[in-house]
Amino acid sequence: MPLHVHFYRLSFEGLTEEFKSLLDPEIVLTEGREIPPKANYDILVNPSPSREWIEASPNLKAIIIPWAGVSEPTRTLMLDYPEVSVHNLHHNNVNTAEMALTLLFAAAKRLIPMDQALRRNDWRPRYDGPQGILLQGKRVLILGFGEIGQALAKLCLGLGLHVMATKKHPETYTGTLDVAVYPDSQLPELLPAADVLMIALPLTAETEGLIGEAEINRMPKGSLLINIGRGPVVDQWALYHALKSGQLRAAGSDVWYHYPETREARANTPPSDAPLGELENFVLSPHRGGMVEEVEHQRIVALARLLNAANRGQPIPNKVDLQLGY
Amino acid sequence: MPLHVHFYRLSFEGLTEEFKSLLDPEIVLTEGREIPPKANYDILVNPSPSREWIEASPNLKAIIIPWAGVSEPTRTLMLDYPEVSVHNLHHNNVNTAEMALTLLFAAAKRLIPMDQALRRNDWRPRYDGPQGILLQGKRVLILGFGEIGQALAKLCLGLGLHVMATKKHPETYTGTLDVAVYPDSQLPELLPAADVLMIALPLTAETEGLIGEAEINRMPKGSLLINIGRGPVVDQWALYHALKSGQLRAAGSDVWYHYPETREARANTPPSDAPLGELENFVLSPHRGGMVEEVEHQRIVALARLLNAANRGQPIPNKVDLQLGY
Repeated sequence: MPLHVHFYRLSFEGLTEEFKSLLDPEIVLTEGREIPPKANYDILVNPSPSREWIEASPNLKAIIIPWAGVSEPTRTLMLDYPEVSVHNLHHNNVNTAEMALTLLFAAAKRLIPMDQALRRNDWRPRYDGPQGILLQGKRVLILGFGEIGQALAKLCLGLGLHVMATKKHPETYTGTLDVAVYPDSQLPELLPAADVLMIALPLTAETEGLIGEAEINRMPKGSLLINIGRGPVVDQWALYHALKSGQLRAAGSDVWYHYPETREARANTPPSDAPLGELENFVLSPHRGGMVEEVEHQRIVALARLLNAANRGQPIPNKVDLQLGY
Repeated sequence: MPLHVHFYRLSFEGLTEEFKSLLDPEIVLTEGREIPPKANYDILVNPSPSREWIEASPNLKAIIIPWAGVSEPTRTLMLDYPEVSVHNLHHNNVNTAEMALTLLFAAAKRLIPMDQALRRNDWRPRYDGPQGILLQGKRVLILGFGEIGQALAKLCLGLGLHVMATKKHPETYTGTLDVAVYPDSQLPELLPAADVLMIALPLTAETEGLIGEAEINRMPKGSLLINIGRGPVVDQWALYHALKSGQLRAAGSDVWYHYPETREARANTPPSDAPLGELENFVLSPHRGGMVEEVEHQRIVALARLLNAANRGQPIPNKVDLQLGY
């Protein structure tokens, strides 16, 4: 029997035909937002499947979430169906890691105020002594060593940085990167060695406010902080005061404390309560993470890889551990 | 006889004692801006020595220029003294390469306009589709494969870019980087494969205006251009029009067409005739190159390495080829 894959929505922004061309030709694709009668799909591609969708097909073996992450409702729902595996896509890890480096370089070199001054024909900051620091040879501590943290570590190593990381279950890291991986509990001892702290953590009860005044004060004076995880992992007022005092030389964030809730609000939603946007030594990015022009192409390639593996009877990559949630 | 080194000025911004501690203890150091009577220095550390300084000491074996580059007057002067070798310092190569990456990431991810918008609480650019491109896997062409070009190539390789380079004498490259090195004459054939063009060339009669409208039009539409060499290597109006038209997606420059000539002029000197500073897809940096906080420390380490080599009878590193000028 050929593999039957049902899509809640089979549409990839002009790349749908290319997606189909990447699939093993015998795979049967169906699409629809209503549960089909006599459902017999083997795989369901659906970002938030309901219980009805899971139970409708006696053949169902796997759910694929066509992006990174798994929502909490899906995670708890799927715990009820241990015979159905859940998979997601990690196609945008490198995109997000590159965003982290964009913020890191801009922060380390004080790019934005110097760009803005030169646009006003003002060269004076150039003559105020060095406005940047070297990154090569500095020590980076990455909090969260999942797919994105690992992609980030690889790039940091390529730039000649020394990399440490924390991971809830460090023993599950079986890769070969030259990274010292520690359990989360080691954070206090690691911070004094963090010239650069990079946060790639999800927001959970454990991570909310994880980095506050005490933690920043354990870092070397003049260090850098980059957040590409979730805003509230870092206490925004602690961040603000550390940037004002110079305890942090500079910082950058792609993730925020407030997001626009309506289309109209997009034009005027302060991303934080603390006036971070007033600071010259802070770099702001409006939660772009993996959003690059290539992302839809990356998505179809990653998704085709999963489906072809299933069709060929191979293990389907990117299986989510529903206990860990990633 | 111990090595005798004369410094035109022996002062390294608070690091002079550390510099001395790095030297072999028997090295004799003298300092002065006047030629000493009975001069007998073996090495002269002087950024622009005169003929009198060269001829004063019968022992003179080498001149060290305590930074990168050799001025044209010094180069032509020293051609008259083939028995005196000329050396310079390459301690800021990585600093300059990191500045190039800072501009590259900011340009590729459209960092500056999105930072500026979010400072005004404006999230709208986030919803206009992807505002950046992925760098990993793109093809970089580095023009000028000297010390800085090679440092840049190494970092680009570490980020997963494919690297090509041009060099006046490609056969002189004996390194091991995974870079395809071509002679300068191949430029027209290489440009169509340059997703990113990075310029690390000095300004010479041959390089002035090297990149103009015709060259930019040979690059793939939507490519990137980064200049850390010298401004006039790139025709400024060709750059401006290509950024306006979208032939170049974005660009960045650390080097310029006009520099402030007096202290007063620093507050208001347009860096170019073309209004590059009006463009959202252009990133400006006021010729900072290797200026990072670590640079003076890097300088004393590099200089001590050269002097200790001379003292130990080893070849002195970083010998300048006076015919090539670098």
